[in-house]
Amino acid sequence: MPQEIPPSGSVVALAGGVGGAKFLRGLVAAAPGAITAIVNTADDFTHQGLRITPDIDTVVYTLSGLVNEQTGWGVADDSTACLEMLGRLGEPTWFRLGDRDLAMHLVRTRLLREGLALSAVTERVRAVLGVPVRVLPMSDDEVATEIETPEGVLAFQDYFVRQACRPAVRGVRFRGAREARPAPGVLDAIAGARAIILCPSNPIVSIGPILAVPGIAGAIAASPARVAAVSPIIGGKAIKGPADRMLRELGHDPTAAGVARIYAGLANVFVLDRVDRALADEVREMGVKPIVTDTLMADPSRARALARTVLEGLR
Amino acid sequence: MPQEIPPSGSVVALAGGVGGAKFLRGLVAAAPGAITAIVNTADDFTHQGLRITPDIDTVVYTLSGLVNEQTGWGVADDSTACLEMLGRLGEPTWFRLGDRDLAMHLVRTRLLREGLALSAVTERVRAVLGVPVRVLPMSDDEVATEIETPEGVLAFQDYFVRQACRPAVRGVRFRGAREARPAPGVLDAIAGARAIILCPSNPIVSIGPILAVPGIAGAIAASPARVAAVSPIIGGKAIKGPADRMLRELGHDPTAAGVARIYAGLANVFVLDRVDRALADEVREMGVKPIVTDTLMADPSRARALARTVLEGLR
Repeated sequence: MPQEIPPSGSVVALAGGVGGAKFLRGLVAAAPGAITAIVNTADDFTHQGLRITPDIDTVVYTLSGLVNEQTGWGVADDSTACLEMLGRLGEPTWFRLGDRDLAMHLVRTRLLREGLALSAVTERVRAVLGVPVRVLPMSDDEVATEIETPEGVLAFQDYFVRQACRPAVRGVRFRGAREARPAPGVLDAIAGARAIILCPSNPIVSIGPILAVPGIAGAIAASPARVAAVSPIIGGKAIKGPADRMLRELGHDPTAAGVARIYAGLANVFVLDRVDRALADEVREMGVKPIVTDTLMADPSRARALARTVLEGLR
Repeated sequence: MPQEIPPSGSVVALAGGVGGAKFLRGLVAAAPGAITAIVNTADDFTHQGLRITPDIDTVVYTLSGLVNEQTGWGVADDSTACLEMLGRLGEPTWFRLGDRDLAMHLVRTRLLREGLALSAVTERVRAVLGVPVRVLPMSDDEVATEIETPEGVLAFQDYFVRQACRPAVRGVRFRGAREARPAPGVLDAIAGARAIILCPSNPIVSIGPILAVPGIAGAIAASPARVAAVSPIIGGKAIKGPADRMLRELGHDPTAAGVARIYAGLANVFVLDRVDRALADEVREMGVKPIVTDTLMADPSRARALARTVLEGLR
C-alpha cells in the first residue's frame, strides 16, 4: 500500500449487482480517465439451457443506458411473452426472464458454446453496446455461490430469487473459487491501477467472491494504488438486497462499521454515509481513513458526486 | 396395397408445413378416430444456439389452437422484443423469432441437450399443449434439406427464409437421410394404419424427406392400408410456398398431375381440385383413382370437408 499513482493506469472498480453498476455510472460521469470494472460472476447460473451472468448484465445494461431504472436491473420496457409461454409449456417461471434480456442470454450462451471465454464474450457485448468501461469478469472459470441454510444448501439464485432471501443464512461458500483463475487482464489491471475501489455492493456475495479468486486480493494488497471501499449499508440497512441480514446472520456487525472491518486489511479509505458519521471513529481505529458523505445514489448526479468524493479521498 | 382396413389402426398422415397442419386440423374435425402425424424434420436447423423444428411446431401450434391464423405458422399475437434486441447486439435477424415461439425453442433445445430424443421432446410438448393427434418426427436423426442453386448449395432455411426462395433450384438433397432411422413408432403406425394420407404439402421438400428415410416408403407400400395423396397445387400454383416453381425447375410438370406422377407408385387415390378436373383422366391413366373436390382450405370447416372427402375416397 502505496504512494505513487501511475497516471496512465485505469481506475479499477470491483463490482457486484445494482449498487456496483450505479457507482460505475457515477464514476464514468466523474471522468477519471480509463476505468476497468472487475465484476462478480459467482451469481452466474444456467437456466433453461441459458448461461446467465446477472452482475455483468446489470453493469452492461446500466452503462449502455438500456437498464430498467425502476428495478436497477434488466432492460427497460421489457416484456415477458416468452416467460408466459414457458409457463404454458409447464416450465418454472420464478426467474423472470424478459424478452429483451433473453437476447443477451442467447448470444452469450451461443458464444460460450462456440468456445469463447466469458471475458471475450463480455468484451464483444461491451463493444457492440458502446459501454465506455472495460468490463472484466472476475474469472472465466465457473464459480458458484452457495448459501447454507437450515433447510440445506441452496444455489444462489434459488436463495436470492426463488426464495426471495427468506431462508436464514448459516454460511456462504464459493464453489470452484479455489481452482478459479483471474480472467485475462484482471491482475494486470490491478497491478497498474491508478486507484482501486470496492463498490457499494454486498461485501459477502458480491465483493467476497471476487476477493476469493486466488491472486486477486494479493494483487490488490501488492498494487501501488490506494484502495477505497464504499459502504453498501446506510443506517444499518442495505440499500438493496439482503446484505444487512446476511451480515447479521453470519456474525458480522450489520452496520457500515461491520463492512469496514471486513475490508480493513485491504482498504486505505472507507466511505460511509452521513447518517453513520458516528461510526467514523470506529473506522479510523481500524487504521482506515473514513470519509463521510452522501452515499445514497438516488439518481445519476448523486452517483457522480459520490464517485468524485471517493476519487478525491484516494488522492 | 391392400384390401383390409384394420379398424383399430390410426389414420396416418405424412405432413410438412402449413398445408399439412391445416389438413390435420381438418382431419381431427372429421373425427376418424386415432390420428398419427409423421412430420418432416428436414427443415430443422440450429439458429442462435436453438434447435428449431419448423414443421413440427406448425403442426403443434395449429392443433393446439396457438397458431397465428394470418401466417399459418408461429404463435398468434407474438411479439419480437427479443429479435429487436438481437439486432441491437449485432446479430442477424432474418429468421423472425417470435418471443412466444422462442419458449418452444428454448424448451426443446434444453431437453435435447439433456439427452431426450426429438420424438420424446415432441410427445412431451404435445401432451402439455393437449394436441389431440400423435405427432411423430419422421426421424430422431438429423436430416437436412440442401438446395442446389446456381450460386451454390444453400441450407434449406437460407433458401426458404433468408433468400425468400429467390434462387433457382437445380437440385434438392437430404443430407443424413440415408443413415437416418424412422423415429420410434413410425413404422408400426404405418404397418397398422387404417388409412394413410400424404397431406397437401410440398412433395419435394416436405413429403420428399419423409419418404427418403430408409424404411418409410417401403412400409407404406407394404401396409394393408390404402394411401391417398392430396395435391398442394391448384391450377398450376402452390397455395403457399415454392412448390410450383420447384417442380418446374426440377423438371416435373408443375401441376396437380405432376404431383400425382411423383406419388403414383405409392398412392391408390389422388385428390385434386375442381379447377384441375381436366387432369383427372391423366391421373387415372397412372393407375391412381382421382377424386375431384374443393381442396383450398380457406377455413377450418373447408379443411374438415376435404378431410372427409379424402377418408371417403379411401374406403
